[in-house]
Amino acid sequence: MAEQTVYKPGLDGVIAAETGISYLDVEAEEIVIRGYELIELAEEKKYLDLVHLLLHCSLPNDSERASLQQELKQEYRLPPKFFRLFEQLPEKTHPMDALRTGISALSGYDERLNERNEEENLKKAILLLAKIPNIVANSYHILHGQKPVKPKQDLPYSDNFLYMITGKEPNAREAAIFDQSLMVYSEHEMPNSTFAARVIASTNADICGALTGAVASLKGNLHGGANEAVMYMLLEGETIEGFRYLLYKKLKNKEKVMGFGHRVYMKKMDPRAALMKEALRELAEDKGRMDLFEMCEAGETLIREEKGLYPNLDYYAAPVYYLLDIPIELYTPIFYASRTLGLCAHIFEQHSNNKLFRPRVHYTGPRGLHP
Amino acid sequence: MAEQTVYKPGLDGVIAAETGISYLDVEAEEIVIRGYELIELAEEKKYLDLVHLLLHCSLPNDSERASLQQELKQEYRLPPKFFRLFEQLPEKTHPMDALRTGISALSGYDERLNERNEEENLKKAILLLAKIPNIVANSYHILHGQKPVKPKQDLPYSDNFLYMITGKEPNAREAAIFDQSLMVYSEHEMPNSTFAARVIASTNADICGALTGAVASLKGNLHGGANEAVMYMLLEGETIEGFRYLLYKKLKNKEKVMGFGHRVYMKKMDPRAALMKEALRELAEDKGRMDLFEMCEAGETLIREEKGLYPNLDYYAAPVYYLLDIPIELYTPIFYASRTLGLCAHIFEQHSNNKLFRPRVHYTGPRGLHP
Ligand SMILES: CC(C)(COP(=O)(O)OP(=O)(O)OC[C@H]1O[C@@H](n2cnc3c(N)ncnc32)[C@H](O)[C@@H]1OP(=O)(O)O)[C@@H](O)C(=O)NCCC(=O)NCCS
Ligand SMILES: CC(C)(COP(=O)(O)OP(=O)(O)OC[C@H]1O[C@@H](n2cnc3c(N)ncnc32)[C@H](O)[C@@H]1OP(=O)(O)O)[C@@H](O)C(=O)NCCC(=O)NCCS
Repeated sequence: MAEQTVYKPGLDGVIAAETGISYLDVEAEEIVIRGYELIELAEEKKYLDLVHLLLHCSLPNDSERASLQQELKQEYRLPPKFFRLFEQLPEKTHPMDALRTGISALSGYDERLNERNEEENLKKAILLLAKIPNIVANSYHILHGQKPVKPKQDLPYSDNFLYMITGKEPNAREAAIFDQSLMVYSEHEMPNSTFAARVIASTNADICGALTGAVASLKGNLHGGANEAVMYMLLEGETIEGFRYLLYKKLKNKEKVMGFGHRVYMKKMDPRAALMKEALRELAEDKGRMDLFEMCEAGETLIREEKGLYPNLDYYAAPVYYLLDIPIELYTPIFYASRTLGLCAHIFEQHSNNKLFRPRVHYTGPRGLHP
Repeated sequence: MAEQTVYKPGLDGVIAAETGISYLDVEAEEIVIRGYELIELAEEKKYLDLVHLLLHCSLPNDSERASLQQELKQEYRLPPKFFRLFEQLPEKTHPMDALRTGISALSGYDERLNERNEEENLKKAILLLAKIPNIVANSYHILHGQKPVKPKQDLPYSDNFLYMITGKEPNAREAAIFDQSLMVYSEHEMPNSTFAARVIASTNADICGALTGAVASLKGNLHGGANEAVMYMLLEGETIEGFRYLLYKKLKNKEKVMGFGHRVYMKKMDPRAALMKEALRELAEDKGRMDLFEMCEAGETLIREEKGLYPNLDYYAAPVYYLLDIPIELYTPIFYASRTLGLCAHIFEQHSNNKLFRPRVHYTGPRGLHP
């Protein structure tokens, strides 16, 4: 018989894996990534450094960073046949669904899909990190009847990503803030999408399958989909007054307010949100949109005072992306593109020390019926 | 801080959900499906009856069964644009990957993707149960450069499914055995793919996303992919002697033998396997292939004697599908098509009483590093 354990809905507090990748130390208020503190990394390093840290377990020196950038650039492009896939999708397809379909389809292009040594894993990760921004940006363009934007090989990784989305080269501040957003989105212990990917990988399923499942998970508005939902809410609010009214209404109706709360932090400000709040302030000043910053801050105050809840990363990432001229429906796909990094590390770790995930249930239905 | 719980690799024995759908009562040797025993149902009922049981919580009377069949028939067809998706996939794409891509793409066709009342859920389930056999059969044909086989609306549900795969109408015995295989594959408590689907659904992700993640999970050879792997192993063995030699070699190399063992039964014969073994005997007699039956039985005896392990459903389903002239690469997609039923029930249950899945980890990596 299944051992009797206390049932924890949502596996709240349950240890589901051993990992050397990352850890939320709530007491110390640290997001630990392979021994480093994420916020410190996000303040001093670049997304590419995190790629090296997560895949090679160390920060790169200058020449390692340069060759990593080089390897990525060589893999930016996608075959034209691949893009034709998106022409077959109904126009109304959500970009997260297009991304899910695209990542699923990638498996057919990988002749060594089931090879899993260290070298092969590394190659797969580089290929995915190079191509997923291209898929995110161009599946969107194709669904909107536009021509794909070719990657610019002379641009740094995240500059090129933002360029493929907006069609214009970002200035230095925009590029730095976008890169920082990718860093804070890159890895975060065992959120639902990472868990989904590891659950799937534990059947010996391949990396494309595990990554496809993670897109599906991230789309939900209790998870990555929250950043998109936050932006619609801010636009609906329009002004500080309108936004406060909207939030009161939601609280009154016992609706969840997107962008607030987190299973692990809950009664503390998400440190990633604090970083994105500062980024928003800078961008808003630059672009003469302090009204948007103030509206967000008013919402933060209201929800803290009324519900004791703090903003999570998605709350401040959404208006940052808005001021970077990113289409709202791409906020969650961008989150995903960044998180591909953490997901790859987790999938490799799961495969290298595997035990099939297969829990039990409490059965609450009838018994003893006969046909 | 996360509560200290004992870490159970693979969540072995951990209760992950409350459910009224099904339960493996290992003591009583019963697979309980909404109060009924699965083996009894599989002996006396049809797959359509299980559809009614899982979706409406009761077995159908004659008129309910007839209208269910009618509703399904009306949804068999797929738009031509949908099939063109498969023309864009590389030829070498595995049918499970094509299926995953196809199910992911379905979301764009659903104008009410995020509506979740009971009536809407039921409609979605019927649509999926009607169309997924069509996707399974015809994505395969298209990847092999053949024309899609149009569903035959005058055939019963599973006869039509088998017809679309093989291009010929099954005789009564073949149809009955195929239907029985769908029944035993339809639902089985909380295996990895069902768990993956519920984990994904718990973010508020839609049913297409949750089902896509479940295809990804089922492909792995520790789960659904085992049926395909079993058949390759039987073919490699060729004769009783050859097969015994192969199995000894695998045991000596400490390889896992596909089709044996199960997290929950482990030291007992899977009752579904016993049923499929009898089906195999009948089919083998009919088709003059008792050699195949005897080979399977010899393998069963060897692994029981040498390892104390018993066959699971996949071990006997594989040769049954082989004698039904089903292409080997479609064994796992067929398992999935049948399991769509259980998955839909679980996704609806998760959505109707939701708590985000978000477990914790034991961190084993370094601490205190600085950039
Ligand atoms: C992220 C989240 C799912 C984590 O929460 P959880 O650990 O599963 O806890 P629950 O959702 O069960 O919430 C616990 C309580 O806090 C309340 N709560 C949590 N987040 C809330 C929010 N954003 N707005 C309003 N109430 C909230 C719940 O209503 C619940 O109250 P109750 O006990 O009176 O029913 C939750 O905070 C949430 O839904 N946030 C909004 C979506 C979001 O921003 N997601 C991105 C996360 S990075
Ligand atoms: C299904 C399965 C993953 C469940 O097993 P589990 O609960 O996760 O247990 P483990 O895989 O850790 O196996 C426990 C022990 O039994 C052994 N074992 C289990 N199944 C085995 C098999 N099919 N062949 C050989 N050894 C097996 C393991 O090697 C392990 O031995 P060890 O303790 O000496 O290392 C496992 O039985 C298996 O891999 N079977 C083959 C794949 C298959 O048929 N899957 C379809 C399941 S319906």
